[in-house]
Amino acid sequence: MPPPSTLAADDARPRARDAGVVVGTLPPGPRNAIVDVPGVRVGHATVVEGDAIRTGVTAIVPHGGDLFRDRVPAAIVVGNGFGKLLGVTQVQELGELETPILLTGTLGVWRVADALVDWQLALPGNENVRSLNPVVGETNDGFLNDIRARRVDGDHVRAALAAATTEDVQEGSVGAGTGTIAFGWKGGIGTSSRRLGDDAGGHTVGVLVQSNYGGRLTIAGVPVGDDLPDPQSLVARAGAGVPPATGDGSIMIVVATDAPLDDRLLRRLATRALAGLARTGASMSNGSGDYVIAFSTAPTARRAPLSPRHALELLSNEAMAPLFVAVAEATEEAIVNSMFRATTVSGHRGTVPALPLDRVLPLLRQAGAVRDAPH
Amino acid sequence: MPPPSTLAADDARPRARDAGVVVGTLPPGPRNAIVDVPGVRVGHATVVEGDAIRTGVTAIVPHGGDLFRDRVPAAIVVGNGFGKLLGVTQVQELGELETPILLTGTLGVWRVADALVDWQLALPGNENVRSLNPVVGETNDGFLNDIRARRVDGDHVRAALAAATTEDVQEGSVGAGTGTIAFGWKGGIGTSSRRLGDDAGGHTVGVLVQSNYGGRLTIAGVPVGDDLPDPQSLVARAGAGVPPATGDGSIMIVVATDAPLDDRLLRRLATRALAGLARTGASMSNGSGDYVIAFSTAPTARRAPLSPRHALELLSNEAMAPLFVAVAEATEEAIVNSMFRATTVSGHRGTVPALPLDRVLPLLRQAGAVRDAPH
Amino acid sequence: MPPPSTLAADDARPRARDAGVVVGTLPPGPRNAIVDVPGVRVGHATVVEGDAIRTGVTAIVPHGGDLFRDRVPAAIVVGNGFGKLLGVTQVQELGELETPILLTGTLGVWRVADALVDWQLALPGNENVRSLNPVVGETNDGFLNDIRARRVDGDHVRAALAAATTEDVQEGSVGAGTGTIAFGWKGGIGTSSRRLGDDAGGHTVGVLVQSNYGGRLTIAGVPVGDDLPDPQSLVARAGAGVPPATGDGSIMIVVATDAPLDDRLLRRLATRALAGLARTGASMSNGSGDYVIAFSTAPTARRAPLSPRHALELLSNEAMAPLFVAVAEATEEAIVNSMFRATTVSGHRGTVPALPLDRVLPLLRQAGAVRDAPH
Amino acid sequence: MPPPSTLAADDARPRARDAGVVVGTLPPGPRNAIVDVPGVRVGHATVVEGDAIRTGVTAIVPHGGDLFRDRVPAAIVVGNGFGKLLGVTQVQELGELETPILLTGTLGVWRVADALVDWQLALPGNENVRSLNPVVGETNDGFLNDIRARRVDGDHVRAALAAATTEDVQEGSVGAGTGTIAFGWKGGIGTSSRRLGDDAGGHTVGVLVQSNYGGRLTIAGVPVGDDLPDPQSLVARAGAGVPPATGDGSIMIVVATDAPLDDRLLRRLATRALAGLARTGASMSNGSGDYVIAFSTAPTARRAPLSPRHALELLSNEAMAPLFVAVAEATEEAIVNSMFRATTVSGHRGTVPALPLDRVLPLLRQAGAVRDAPH
Repeated sequence: MPPPSTLAADDARPRARDAGVVVGTLPPGPRNAIVDVPGVRVGHATVVEGDAIRTGVTAIVPHGGDLFRDRVPAAIVVGNGFGKLLGVTQVQELGELETPILLTGTLGVWRVADALVDWQLALPGNENVRSLNPVVGETNDGFLNDIRARRVDGDHVRAALAAATTEDVQEGSVGAGTGTIAFGWKGGIGTSSRRLGDDAGGHTVGVLVQSNYGGRLTIAGVPVGDDLPDPQSLVARAGAGVPPATGDGSIMIVVATDAPLDDRLLRRLATRALAGLARTGASMSNGSGDYVIAFSTAPTARRAPLSPRHALELLSNEAMAPLFVAVAEATEEAIVNSMFRATTVSGHRGTVPALPLDRVLPLLRQAGAVRDAPH
Repeated sequence: MPPPSTLAADDARPRARDAGVVVGTLPPGPRNAIVDVPGVRVGHATVVEGDAIRTGVTAIVPHGGDLFRDRVPAAIVVGNGFGKLLGVTQVQELGELETPILLTGTLGVWRVADALVDWQLALPGNENVRSLNPVVGETNDGFLNDIRARRVDGDHVRAALAAATTEDVQEGSVGAGTGTIAFGWKGGIGTSSRRLGDDAGGHTVGVLVQSNYGGRLTIAGVPVGDDLPDPQSLVARAGAGVPPATGDGSIMIVVATDAPLDDRLLRRLATRALAGLARTGASMSNGSGDYVIAFSTAPTARRAPLSPRHALELLSNEAMAPLFVAVAEATEEAIVNSMFRATTVSGHRGTVPALPLDRVLPLLRQAGAVRDAPH
Repeated sequence: MPPPSTLAADDARPRARDAGVVVGTLPPGPRNAIVDVPGVRVGHATVVEGDAIRTGVTAIVPHGGDLFRDRVPAAIVVGNGFGKLLGVTQVQELGELETPILLTGTLGVWRVADALVDWQLALPGNENVRSLNPVVGETNDGFLNDIRARRVDGDHVRAALAAATTEDVQEGSVGAGTGTIAFGWKGGIGTSSRRLGDDAGGHTVGVLVQSNYGGRLTIAGVPVGDDLPDPQSLVARAGAGVPPATGDGSIMIVVATDAPLDDRLLRRLATRALAGLARTGASMSNGSGDYVIAFSTAPTARRAPLSPRHALELLSNEAMAPLFVAVAEATEEAIVNSMFRATTVSGHRGTVPALPLDRVLPLLRQAGAVRDAPH
Repeated sequence: MPPPSTLAADDARPRARDAGVVVGTLPPGPRNAIVDVPGVRVGHATVVEGDAIRTGVTAIVPHGGDLFRDRVPAAIVVGNGFGKLLGVTQVQELGELETPILLTGTLGVWRVADALVDWQLALPGNENVRSLNPVVGETNDGFLNDIRARRVDGDHVRAALAAATTEDVQEGSVGAGTGTIAFGWKGGIGTSSRRLGDDAGGHTVGVLVQSNYGGRLTIAGVPVGDDLPDPQSLVARAGAGVPPATGDGSIMIVVATDAPLDDRLLRRLATRALAGLARTGASMSNGSGDYVIAFSTAPTARRAPLSPRHALELLSNEAMAPLFVAVAEATEEAIVNSMFRATTVSGHRGTVPALPLDRVLPLLRQAGAVRDAPH
């Protein structure tokens, strides 16, 4: 079994766009990541221990202040509700987020939420807070990770939050993506962004995904999965397990934007992230918990705490169309990035190989889906 | 059979509050009607012909302008979806109303919507309008009215809209309430309002109902239905039919407010109207289509037409609590008013007597639910 | 401060029906409790420590087997989503419950869910389970209980589950109701049931509530709250806090039935529980998380595990009407029971007195809402 | 302007699969059409008059009996609710369809529903029916069609219903697709189906669409729209209008299956049809009303009329996965068929050219998306 260090991103594995694979038509932001939305931070805690623990926590923090006292408008959309996402009904009722968003493995979600509550209650100024609605999502990493060991704890939560940065986002087999599987290949964390032209408002939409699902692997429209070998044929060894081929699994999609949107417009935006998911060949299989959490960081969309009235400035329904294109494209590219950057991982019940880019890129090139000069 | 003129309100039949029956604790507005919300207008077209046609149209018009070009935020909440309310998904998606609201009998709803579209397309300035989302609700008046005759037409729609006024609202067996039945007694149109104190924002909530459902008739908490005779025992005659005693039927509840609410806050408000319905003894029976349509007339909650951005000023979640109390109370009282004011009506398949106030009021007085000095 | 033992039910405090207060018209089951639905069990762990810990856990167990392998159809309805109920989306997507239902205080919900997962994963036969959807609800006991101390742990979860019995249900200041407040008086756990006549199918509907909300206290239609003193006037002492008078708080309503209902019919049933809530004077205030969880124990409504096809026998839509009446009545009476049985509790920030039955019962008698011979 | 006869399908325009363009991996049914689901019938009334009327009605009839008395389980899923689909709430509440489904142009939807009610009330055996929930959808054909003329009437409704047949379905510029536009090219009616292998249950999923939306035209994963000329450049003539390039418009997707599904499983199935839509390059633009209506024809999923209990046999959640793949593929192919078969149409405000297959097919071939031997 390879040592845990192999989980770290392999610099030889490019992001999709760096390999010339361009998804959609809109330009990305400077980092092509969710952190292109100003103020948004991402942090990971990767939990790799011995032969069997391959899991972690990823934190997405909407802004640098205290979320409880300076909430952001938010929406949650359920593609397939076979999952344990915590905090749903309050976000839907009040239209706002009052904690950072954390992602982890399925059986860790409650403990992670519990630790997030501890962390946030302890923040200065929250001494009298007696209610909190942590939003914590998950996908099931139970093949590579000994999920029943339930290894994630509060230390990992605090580490992920402490690590949150507006800098480049680590992708692949890190954080909550450490043990996830996509289309039989190693999945994980991926991110991407789109920036609208100034005539369309100049807004940025950023997406981060935790990919752990299946279907007919399609990249930039090319069903490359049809021409790839069975992933397990690349790693099979005596006695190793085989991950279920049911197309199950799940995906968590987090969408950030600086466009001034209220919860209804964010719900509309989040719905379109599922279009990006669909284009990768997913059909939201029965066992796949597919969720989108979207929030806006725009100050004019944020409610003043404790005020009985709020002055807001929001986009119109009509102004949403380019944002819809953006979120679908960024979601699709974030998913592709999660697989391009993920490295082979061995763990609890077997090994899941990284997507073999040396086979994938020629297929994409043959189909006309690779641009020679990457940008 | 009595001549149609008997359908007109009987001045001997008081509104609940005029008879000393006070629902809830908050004070009503000056007219104790939905028209207490400034600008809101109501108009009826009562359709009574021969022995068998007992139906009509009621129009609720949010403001004096053209709704298509000056839309109001709106929400629709479904208590029990066994009904034909038209226009639901667009209101839910866009959070706004672009036509007046019309109410009628079940089998007339499409024709009424069609005529409303004709009417609104013909308004000056709408020459290029090619899409319109009429909101038309209904309850089933098929006992008193020969519903299969489908008598309501565009003339009635135009008459109801033309009659719309900010003055006192006719209640009882008028307009869309001409042929409806509530708890076995004659139901119909009823209205009420509540005005919050200035410390709670001074907002007004007005409600109009079309009552046509059943349950255990409860007025101001007193289950008077238990001590009333079978309604049909008061009117039975050879050969007459008996309305179904299944507790089925439906209710349309229209809520207006001048509080600055967006669609999410209006959805929350509309949900509480169902609390008022419940207090009258309804359990939203299987066949009862129970709907609430709520809108805000506040200019600061209205989106500027054609603008890509909207400056809004809205209430906070926390400021909603007194409005929730108000809408529950006003809905309950509007329902009671619909029955207090409704007169006995004979029609297609039999006769439905008015609620016998001479029996009801003593029961209420005995239970301590009548105040001596009405206000 | 009174010793913890005073939290135990005071036998001098009768249940509503034993005091002659009859809610609705349908007869209750033999125990007038959720356990009248055959197989349903309820258990409490009451957590009372020192001056400040007043909380607990209540378990509702649908049947005696393992829920994960023998699931029951279920639905969740949100009256007001300002709460932390866990497990919502999966119940809505798959229409079934795979764990017992646990109730606790707000800030304990994730830890309780985590312990429930531990407990269920350890059951014989679940050795390979890698996904589980615990359903855990809460209301906020943060006045009587030092909620930020977060005292509830896995021991309490296991104790509540171990204590679950089909026998009489303890009500009042026990389990998850130890520290809750209703209408300014001590709330807590309450239960009631209704049994339909054989001509209506002979089904039983049972309800259990955790009451912790506010409004205009109304019992059997009588607004007794108007004529009661300020609760704090009965207990005030120097330096004690006063619970917020905002009408906030929350209620969890659990509905069980042996009628063969699928998730859609259960959703319809659960919606009507909110009618019972409304009749107690609630208007689902902004801060009140009001939820209904409904399940059916009928074997013919249960899916055979691992089978690709399921043979079911279900009620028709039309057969639902009497069940709707039953659930509204049982919910209303369960709430009244929760207050009738709850005893005065002193705790973290003050004291909350029990509802003064010596004042309430005369008010009810005066309004004609007490029957002389209780049944 | 071309004579109306040019609207008829041009036999030189193949269906996608006949041109070697294969969408997805599952095999179609014998007709590759919604009528592959046994009993399902489709009929069109094409309304072409003079220079400006280009509209029509399409009927989808689930079975040969009377739908009111022999209802089928059904679900409606809203992708984007900016549309006028009638009948939504009752289908969602009761989980069943009681009329055929009709499609037409936006401003015709109420009149079509009204005529459908006339038609169905007049069927033998429905003499006492006093309530009916017509399901009628629309997309906006207001560029090619003088939509404000509101030309569709009851004759067209009856003609479409009378024409309904289990034989091959006419596609392209017919019926409700007569005047619709997709991606700037002529859209219309399209259909496709998938048949699962016997090991997956052998069920058939059939889809029919009315395509009228936009985005980045993508066929079998290839973004052919990027390399096609502006459609209007092919037809421009002095004084002609240009259809709006906003990506707006709408799509109605009707899904039929013989798999025994209840309304919840149908809702899950319908959600996946939107994945097929997404793969064609749609991002459900603001103005696009995107709806899916799904029903099952399986006798074991159908409720016996008037019975208080229903014996059903349904698929499990786990058995849904292959159906999800099927519905996404069939939807995508139905859309492609709608454009392959649609012919150039001139009308009210200009001309919309047919998709130029002589340019599209080489692009698809170059990208490896055309199989040499069609099957």
